[in-house]
Amino acid sequence: MVERPFPLNAWYAVAWGHELRKGEILGRTVCDAKIALWRTSAGAAVAVEDACWHRLMPLSHGRLEGDSLVCRYHGLAFDASGRCVRMPSQEKLNPNACVRSYPIAEKHRLVWMWPGDAAAADPALVPDWHWADDPEWEGDGETLALNCDYRLVIDNLMDLTHETFVHATSIGHSAIAVTPAKTTHDERSVTVERWMADIDAPPFWRTQLGRPGNVDRWQIIRFEPPCTIVLDVGVALAGTGALQGDRSQGVNGRVLNTITPATARTCMYFWSLVRNYRLRDQTLTTQLRQANARIFEEDRAVLEVQQQAIDARPGQALRNLNIDAGSLWARRLIDGMLAREREPHQVEQS
Amino acid sequence: MVERPFPLNAWYAVAWGHELRKGEILGRTVCDAKIALWRTSAGAAVAVEDACWHRLMPLSHGRLEGDSLVCRYHGLAFDASGRCVRMPSQEKLNPNACVRSYPIAEKHRLVWMWPGDAAAADPALVPDWHWADDPEWEGDGETLALNCDYRLVIDNLMDLTHETFVHATSIGHSAIAVTPAKTTHDERSVTVERWMADIDAPPFWRTQLGRPGNVDRWQIIRFEPPCTIVLDVGVALAGTGALQGDRSQGVNGRVLNTITPATARTCMYFWSLVRNYRLRDQTLTTQLRQANARIFEEDRAVLEVQQQAIDARPGQALRNLNIDAGSLWARRLIDGMLAREREPHQVEQS
Amino acid sequence: MVERPFPLNAWYAVAWGHELRKGEILGRTVCDAKIALWRTSAGAAVAVEDACWHRLMPLSHGRLEGDSLVCRYHGLAFDASGRCVRMPSQEKLNPNACVRSYPIAEKHRLVWMWPGDAAAADPALVPDWHWADDPEWEGDGETLALNCDYRLVIDNLMDLTHETFVHATSIGHSAIAVTPAKTTHDERSVTVERWMADIDAPPFWRTQLGRPGNVDRWQIIRFEPPCTIVLDVGVALAGTGALQGDRSQGVNGRVLNTITPATARTCMYFWSLVRNYRLRDQTLTTQLRQANARIFEEDRAVLEVQQQAIDARPGQALRNLNIDAGSLWARRLIDGMLAREREPHQVEQS
Repeated sequence: MVERPFPLNAWYAVAWGHELRKGEILGRTVCDAKIALWRTSAGAAVAVEDACWHRLMPLSHGRLEGDSLVCRYHGLAFDASGRCVRMPSQEKLNPNACVRSYPIAEKHRLVWMWPGDAAAADPALVPDWHWADDPEWEGDGETLALNCDYRLVIDNLMDLTHETFVHATSIGHSAIAVTPAKTTHDERSVTVERWMADIDAPPFWRTQLGRPGNVDRWQIIRFEPPCTIVLDVGVALAGTGALQGDRSQGVNGRVLNTITPATARTCMYFWSLVRNYRLRDQTLTTQLRQANARIFEEDRAVLEVQQQAIDARPGQALRNLNIDAGSLWARRLIDGMLAREREPHQVEQS
Repeated sequence: MVERPFPLNAWYAVAWGHELRKGEILGRTVCDAKIALWRTSAGAAVAVEDACWHRLMPLSHGRLEGDSLVCRYHGLAFDASGRCVRMPSQEKLNPNACVRSYPIAEKHRLVWMWPGDAAAADPALVPDWHWADDPEWEGDGETLALNCDYRLVIDNLMDLTHETFVHATSIGHSAIAVTPAKTTHDERSVTVERWMADIDAPPFWRTQLGRPGNVDRWQIIRFEPPCTIVLDVGVALAGTGALQGDRSQGVNGRVLNTITPATARTCMYFWSLVRNYRLRDQTLTTQLRQANARIFEEDRAVLEVQQQAIDARPGQALRNLNIDAGSLWARRLIDGMLAREREPHQVEQS
Repeated sequence: MVERPFPLNAWYAVAWGHELRKGEILGRTVCDAKIALWRTSAGAAVAVEDACWHRLMPLSHGRLEGDSLVCRYHGLAFDASGRCVRMPSQEKLNPNACVRSYPIAEKHRLVWMWPGDAAAADPALVPDWHWADDPEWEGDGETLALNCDYRLVIDNLMDLTHETFVHATSIGHSAIAVTPAKTTHDERSVTVERWMADIDAPPFWRTQLGRPGNVDRWQIIRFEPPCTIVLDVGVALAGTGALQGDRSQGVNGRVLNTITPATARTCMYFWSLVRNYRLRDQTLTTQLRQANARIFEEDRAVLEVQQQAIDARPGQALRNLNIDAGSLWARRLIDGMLAREREPHQVEQS
């Protein structure tokens, strides 16, 4: 039995807004809970447990009637709050007949769900992905279903030296592995910052910059527990002031990532690559989304094989190098959330 | 570990008579037992444990020599009683060398097997499927392998309100879900009876009746434990006396069902749809068999998904509505059989 | 939990020499250990544990740099002894950073690995497969991955009566099953010898002999624990002295077999069929290899089904006939090795 590796009291992305189409029902798994999602006639996203109160038939196999979800097997109907509002062949409804509903917040193009204590589900706590619908930024992303612990994806993103080896032909660069990064953290975030001065640009960034000459390159990784990471990445012509704060002679992107545990060994990875240059250029947006999707497939190949190797060696510890300072702190913040959930009555020091 | 959900002292259908062809060996699983079936030269069906006494090689991979089954690996031969009658390279046979044989009864077009105490295997106890070879009735059926507990199929058949939702385009009708059914039971059967007076006929029955006008429709479900259900179903022109017993202005069918547990989570479902009108019409027989097969595929889609949902929620109870009175009593009769098998020495009160 | 059925202190074939190509990395599983194999620039075969010291990424997914294996994920490099010789972003290496390396011996066209105590890995103990590269003999073989306990393959080879039933159309002959075999054994081998005088030749041997007339046929099986079996097989014209030691009027082959446990339920089966007639005839070599491969596919069909049957009946013993004397003694020698590994401090009586 694997110990639950994810906190429940957190907002988790469960779908892109566009994935949840009106009139359709979406079945997803979030933190070991199977969920049926749909939109009311007013457009509000709702989520309920994906098992009929009666005989456990998954409600995601049912159909919508107005704002209600109707079970495909015996026609029990449930409203957006999860209350049963119709039973077959009987007038009087059991007043306890309901399925659990979950708090939902739709923000930054994503539908977020709170699998834990509903009373604590404060929409202000939705992770910061504001670049996804900020008019100053433009880009797009995808959803990846990965067969690995969501924390392996976090490890991957918190240490970008792997780009040198895993993504050698696109964004990798030997400079990444030899340039030390600076890791800082507080109670609610971890930041890893690496500046590479006056280097040759890797193919991806050379194309984005569209100019010859060496560059200054930056990677600023910010982790927000339990599973959101925003990468501030870019290059500028070497010596034009990027290291001092002037990025005007460069190109700048954000890679937005949030990784939702489905089970202890699977996850849904939502990502978007956005930029603040060449806005309104849909061809570039599509090219960047496709290029990034190819890069993330290289990560998938590593992460899923790593998970299998971990599963084949129960109890064997992962070891840490200097490069793992970021992931080490990220896991500590996650472990802190888990510890607080295990001891709910302890007064939290803040 | 799942507790065994099926009694062993009962006749279970293991094959259609025509599925067990002379000269061939059939491997099947019945109540967790792997079985090799064949016919002797006289045509008698026989069943033995599907594992050679010597090194457990499945005998169903072997070949027939006269009335004996010869193991494919080392050539040990077993007669119809399961006794080893030949060993390689030795004249003297171990007198204990045998595989278990099982009582068989061939009746109503099916081959039935008794997996429990052979001394109790009374052929008079074979379930009543007599319509299958009654010259007054005609029809045909099929075998479905389902990935679900056999009791979910019984639940399905004992409550036909599901036709409204699962089979909306063929035999479903909103009248089924709103018309109460009457459930009766005794020690050896459960009956659920529903009469719908003066309703519009659903497509399937409209075609069978071949006449316009509202109908009276009936569904009389009879369960014989542990796993046989006969549906007496039909429609007659409304008001022509069907409710009072005169079905002459209608069409009448029997859906014969018997569901054999293979394991706790899989079963073989044998069914036949027979009618007492338009006999000798093979085209109609084929059409009805195909139409019913399509309907049962709709059930399969529900039942297998329901089983997965149950497995994902160990310990979570199924809940009952008014419509579940029939399945509730069916499960009580099954549970009674199981309880008697667990306490074999107790004197049964009858 | 299955008890480990293979000794660790033994040489196991892990690849054909030609399978381990310079510049490539081979991932294999031997005795439950996942292994990465490669060749140094000098051509020496080396084997290390297939999991990076850092985060367990399988090293067989990495790449070679000179004599070092470089992890695909973060670029840690390991030398042929398993010592880590490079880490990303840090000058100072953890002196404990290493992966386990295994003793290797390359002999008789195979690469052999010792999964147990390295101090005991004496190259003189490599099993005798010398016919594989003896200039007086010629032939070729293949590698089969089988889903069964390696001991089932040994049982199969130690009792060739199965040829009568499993290989009826090629090398089988009813004489095998009726002719008794003589089994002898000592501390380090088991021999089963069967001579069939003046019989009709089966199709395979008739073709090899290329002459009409009855034959004397021999099968001399020699087992060397834990998993190597050499078959001395052939036919000679009947009555020309083969039984007395003169095989000059016949054809003679060796079937070389060594079966490496991958897990308790899977194995790699290396075999080669060599002959001492018509040397330098590559067409015949290819024909014989292909013919033998077809025969071994017939064995695979039996062995994998037998394994499934065994797994379905935990705790049920396999029974022995007279024909099983050879496999019985082979298993006793294996059990002796296992017992000695469980009690390492006991002084061995020899």
